[in-house]
Amino acid sequence: MSAADAPAQRPWLDTPAGPLRSRLVLGIEQYPSAQLIADVLTAGGCDVFITTFDLRSRRSSVPLFDVAAVLDVETFTWVGTTSFARSEDEALRTVEMLHGSFAITTIKLDVRGEDNTPDVPATLRVARELCTQGFAVLPLVPADVAVVAELVDAGCAAVRLVASPVGSARGIADPVAMRLAIEAAAVPVVVECGIGSVAHAAQAMELGADAVLVNAAVVRAADPVRMAAAMRHAVLGGRLAAGLAGQAAGGVPVPVGMV
Amino acid sequence: MSAADAPAQRPWLDTPAGPLRSRLVLGIEQYPSAQLIADVLTAGGCDVFITTFDLRSRRSSVPLFDVAAVLDVETFTWVGTTSFARSEDEALRTVEMLHGSFAITTIKLDVRGEDNTPDVPATLRVARELCTQGFAVLPLVPADVAVVAELVDAGCAAVRLVASPVGSARGIADPVAMRLAIEAAAVPVVVECGIGSVAHAAQAMELGADAVLVNAAVVRAADPVRMAAAMRHAVLGGRLAAGLAGQAAGGVPVPVGMV
Repeated sequence: MSAADAPAQRPWLDTPAGPLRSRLVLGIEQYPSAQLIADVLTAGGCDVFITTFDLRSRRSSVPLFDVAAVLDVETFTWVGTTSFARSEDEALRTVEMLHGSFAITTIKLDVRGEDNTPDVPATLRVARELCTQGFAVLPLVPADVAVVAELVDAGCAAVRLVASPVGSARGIADPVAMRLAIEAAAVPVVVECGIGSVAHAAQAMELGADAVLVNAAVVRAADPVRMAAAMRHAVLGGRLAAGLAGQAAGGVPVPVGMV
Repeated sequence: MSAADAPAQRPWLDTPAGPLRSRLVLGIEQYPSAQLIADVLTAGGCDVFITTFDLRSRRSSVPLFDVAAVLDVETFTWVGTTSFARSEDEALRTVEMLHGSFAITTIKLDVRGEDNTPDVPATLRVARELCTQGFAVLPLVPADVAVVAELVDAGCAAVRLVASPVGSARGIADPVAMRLAIEAAAVPVVVECGIGSVAHAAQAMELGADAVLVNAAVVRAADPVRMAAAMRHAVLGGRLAAGLAGQAAGGVPVPVGMV
């Protein structure tokens, strides 16, 4: 592949901490070593570094200093996540710690219930509060047009939409609903959760997503670095194909003739 | 994308006419211009040039001389197709013309009924005959383990397996059957028919296909050149991901954790 194959890497989102250009965003949880985190982010062509703060252990869940020793993390745009929060209060306190510890201003907002699915009412309230405080907020919610509209109204920088239940690896459970939510969103859309294969990632981009976030499918692959490179190609392929055919499930099938 | 991202381009098939390295094979039917054929093959990184001979019009269905004027077709490996044949006799006569006209020795063998699906018994008979005559034969059949075994026994160089009905753009209708057929095949496998999106192409490669053949999804895309590049990335992504996770439909789901 030559660079000429890739579309111009214009940012899909501008954050206060910097532009996000890579359409592949990789979570960095559950990795056995800092070197593997560095290798995976490099192979994936990523430019987002997702930092966390675990209120229970009172530290980042990722070995930040170890990663910084093997990767120039300053070249990444830092985004903080509240994925460990299980209540509005925990989410807000996590953001406070992320801001205080790392001067984080862009928040990957997760407020999940004990069932690990987004708590929509709680997410809406926290998103509104954080937008008011001046954060760039990227909340995780189901692919629902009205919920997305409410978050856009609240001032969210982008929305992250659930493809299928976390842990299911089922891909995009309802491609029609996903397409409608993406088309209705007035802000960039990230598709995540349940992305278990490169085909799922490609489909998300074909449906019009601005980016795809993957973690487990890469960290649990037999070769995470190779899988990160695979995801990078799949996301680029899906991005190139977006809008060219209506086929990517939920649209008008391409009439396929004889070959 | 840097070249370092791509796996070594070892041939997936050696034919008498040369090695096939590109995992993306593009049909070149239905294009409005020779220049577009050249641009699409280049964007797709293809190394196969599929020639045809239409017994009814007694000429190639593709404007060969026009294409040769804008593309160095000698650098491609030429494969002849019988996709216009609707009987055993037509298939054999088409191969005779392809061999006589272009010294074709590698045959993309299609023997379809009037319903445009492969006629399995007729395909088996013609494949056996052509193998006996010394051709490298790549027949199109359903994803069926016993049919594939019979073709391998006949000496076919590779098999081409139907993903879903031509014209449906439904992708891989039965991923479990496809995976089983691919795993059982003792020769390289090409997946084709019904590949309507880059996600379908990526999935085929994840399932273990050696190559994917696409025509209509590219020629009928709003921007065929861009779609060819998209397919190239999707196929590479799927190839990189193959065997890393069992998820690509039909396998063991990747357990996806919290991100």
